[in-house]
Amino acid sequence: MRAEIIAVGSELLSLGRPETDSLYISSKLKTLGIDVLRKFVVGDREQELTESLSLALKRSDVVTITGGLGPTNDDITREVVARFLGKELREDQKILDDLQRRYERFGLKLTPNNRKQAMVPDGAEVLPNPHGTAPGLFLKVADGLLFLLPGPPRELCPMVERHVLTIIRRYKQVNPVPFRQLKVGGEAESRVDARIESIYKEYRDVETTILSSPGVISLYFMWKGGPDLEAADQVLDELSDRVKERLGKSVYSNREEELAEVVGRLLKGRSLTVATAESCTGGLIGKLLTDVSGSSAYYLGSIVSYSNSVKAELLGVPHELLQLDGAVSEPVARQMAIGVRGKLGSDVGLSVTGIAGPGGGTEKKPVGTIWLGLSIKDRTKARSLLLPGGREAVRLRTSNLALDWLRREIL
Amino acid sequence: MRAEIIAVGSELLSLGRPETDSLYISSKLKTLGIDVLRKFVVGDREQELTESLSLALKRSDVVTITGGLGPTNDDITREVVARFLGKELREDQKILDDLQRRYERFGLKLTPNNRKQAMVPDGAEVLPNPHGTAPGLFLKVADGLLFLLPGPPRELCPMVERHVLTIIRRYKQVNPVPFRQLKVGGEAESRVDARIESIYKEYRDVETTILSSPGVISLYFMWKGGPDLEAADQVLDELSDRVKERLGKSVYSNREEELAEVVGRLLKGRSLTVATAESCTGGLIGKLLTDVSGSSAYYLGSIVSYSNSVKAELLGVPHELLQLDGAVSEPVARQMAIGVRGKLGSDVGLSVTGIAGPGGGTEKKPVGTIWLGLSIKDRTKARSLLLPGGREAVRLRTSNLALDWLRREIL
Repeated sequence: MRAEIIAVGSELLSLGRPETDSLYISSKLKTLGIDVLRKFVVGDREQELTESLSLALKRSDVVTITGGLGPTNDDITREVVARFLGKELREDQKILDDLQRRYERFGLKLTPNNRKQAMVPDGAEVLPNPHGTAPGLFLKVADGLLFLLPGPPRELCPMVERHVLTIIRRYKQVNPVPFRQLKVGGEAESRVDARIESIYKEYRDVETTILSSPGVISLYFMWKGGPDLEAADQVLDELSDRVKERLGKSVYSNREEELAEVVGRLLKGRSLTVATAESCTGGLIGKLLTDVSGSSAYYLGSIVSYSNSVKAELLGVPHELLQLDGAVSEPVARQMAIGVRGKLGSDVGLSVTGIAGPGGGTEKKPVGTIWLGLSIKDRTKARSLLLPGGREAVRLRTSNLALDWLRREIL
Repeated sequence: MRAEIIAVGSELLSLGRPETDSLYISSKLKTLGIDVLRKFVVGDREQELTESLSLALKRSDVVTITGGLGPTNDDITREVVARFLGKELREDQKILDDLQRRYERFGLKLTPNNRKQAMVPDGAEVLPNPHGTAPGLFLKVADGLLFLLPGPPRELCPMVERHVLTIIRRYKQVNPVPFRQLKVGGEAESRVDARIESIYKEYRDVETTILSSPGVISLYFMWKGGPDLEAADQVLDELSDRVKERLGKSVYSNREEELAEVVGRLLKGRSLTVATAESCTGGLIGKLLTDVSGSSAYYLGSIVSYSNSVKAELLGVPHELLQLDGAVSEPVARQMAIGVRGKLGSDVGLSVTGIAGPGGGTEKKPVGTIWLGLSIKDRTKARSLLLPGGREAVRLRTSNLALDWLRREIL
């Protein structure tokens, strides 16, 4: 089973806007055993869209087109595809009613441009979009399945999960490729690879991939050994168990989930509340924790002490400490954790202070120097990090390493 | 002048590894007035690479292929391109010597696989690569210019700067495209479009693009009217001035910069400090403000009052208010702004409380209900928003709208 992906939007070509929809779609198709053979990114122009579509439909079982379904003049996907397939567009009353209601709810009126979004090519199946105005469309083209999907990820992703995968299963015999996944916190990619290389190299029927983002590493083990699924499960379980054992506490999940979700589940399970005291991360740790809906059950809040006066007055860090040891130091990190725990009345206090750069580094404390503090029960700990990367990477890595430390401490 | 870009590598298709080389190449070609018409991402397979190359060479002046020049078996670019063009590959003694020296320096021996990298198609010009083992290759194909380039950005980028752009200038008359940009805060995309559509539609020689992300909109006006650059500047200035006038205070910049940078500059210029009190955004506003290096000059910190007890005890929101009006209400937003300003001793207090969803909504206060508060000098204001989108979009939109409100208030 093969797929090709077409992303439409001049902004993806000219304005440095990275194209991410295809990454999501590929990963979902993969769960059905469908390989993506090729991606096209085209502008809002008929010629390249038509050419790419024609090429894609020639050999692939599934073709997706994302983007270009909006209400503006440069949204051409619907019209171009209809023309290419020789199909008429007709106005769909149900879509129109939905649009009307949606606009009214936000106090807006439907413009003629908006009505474009209610146009549907003959024979297309409409895929509802509860998160936006552009419904998706599905068309069967000879033996191929063609999906027109909205570009914004929050509209696209639920539509793929709910409709696209279901429709593919309806028409095609799918052969999901067995795989295992492990998420690893608190370690560098090269170190993880060095630790597990000798294990995964033993498995010829498994393709191992290591993907890293600041502070978090994903391991994928994909089965490449043919149709014997029983063997696949056995081999994959064995490999992933061995890797898990080797990496120990560093493995925080065996599925796609964020560190903050796992930390939240642990806190909830142990009936612990946490509060954070952030300096160089400026609120990012709180942001990550509250990305998880329902986090109010265990997250009380944060004191973002970007200035030293806030560290002193709200977190009780003595002025002398700040002057003597500097804001980025072990005793300050410790007191920040103790201070925020006391001030907010949480069971756990987690703190971070550091130099995210590009300025502010010194010879003794270069950019990337970080102190983390953790206060829990009757003990308070601190640890230091020296992190590579630019400001953004340092801040994200710091936040993930802080969350991962919290996770290990309450395991 | 048109270009197409081909990225080669199975890892770009299968496992969520984003393709970024093309963004860099596009931006560089743009400086020469060359539009990228289409991008292809293909795996390490001859068929899709050949098809894509054939399509790309048909109509474009410049075609780049990145990746697949390495020493391993799945690096096929060199061979496939030579075969497609009907050219012999010959071993280049200079490249081989360079490779030999490079490997010796790292104490390694050249393997037969490594020698592959010294193979050059007949008539190709070799582009030296001081940062890696794979030299680039340039081939003239009829009127088109074809570049084979290494995938790793630290090898690719210097090669583009030093060789690719120079070669294009050697063969082609280049015409940098004049453009203007405006960044708009605090308005919805559809509203901005409706307000300015009648203006930009008058300008047939200008292509207007509207890009929106939650809470921030980018407008681009690209010149399409040919080589008269004086006319271009005049027309673009006129158009962008008229749009600026129509949108008034909503325009926050005429170049690529974040709202938080502009807000920071304004605060600094007026010698004002700010502190934030965040509830549903959980620290995101602080994160955005401190994305800007040097923000410690005006940002003191935040009290993230995710729980009501923190709103009461640290921000001085009376318990009765929280019970009577609820945490998401005008008086609570006001008191949060006043409270954080007092507690952190800042000139300005900015607060947000709201329901980001997916849970927590009621009939009277549905998901997306937000109250913002702002306390400055002798006045405190509040305003409410009702925002569409999922949790992530609501939180980002809320944060950007809060920052934009602060900007307007201190203009």
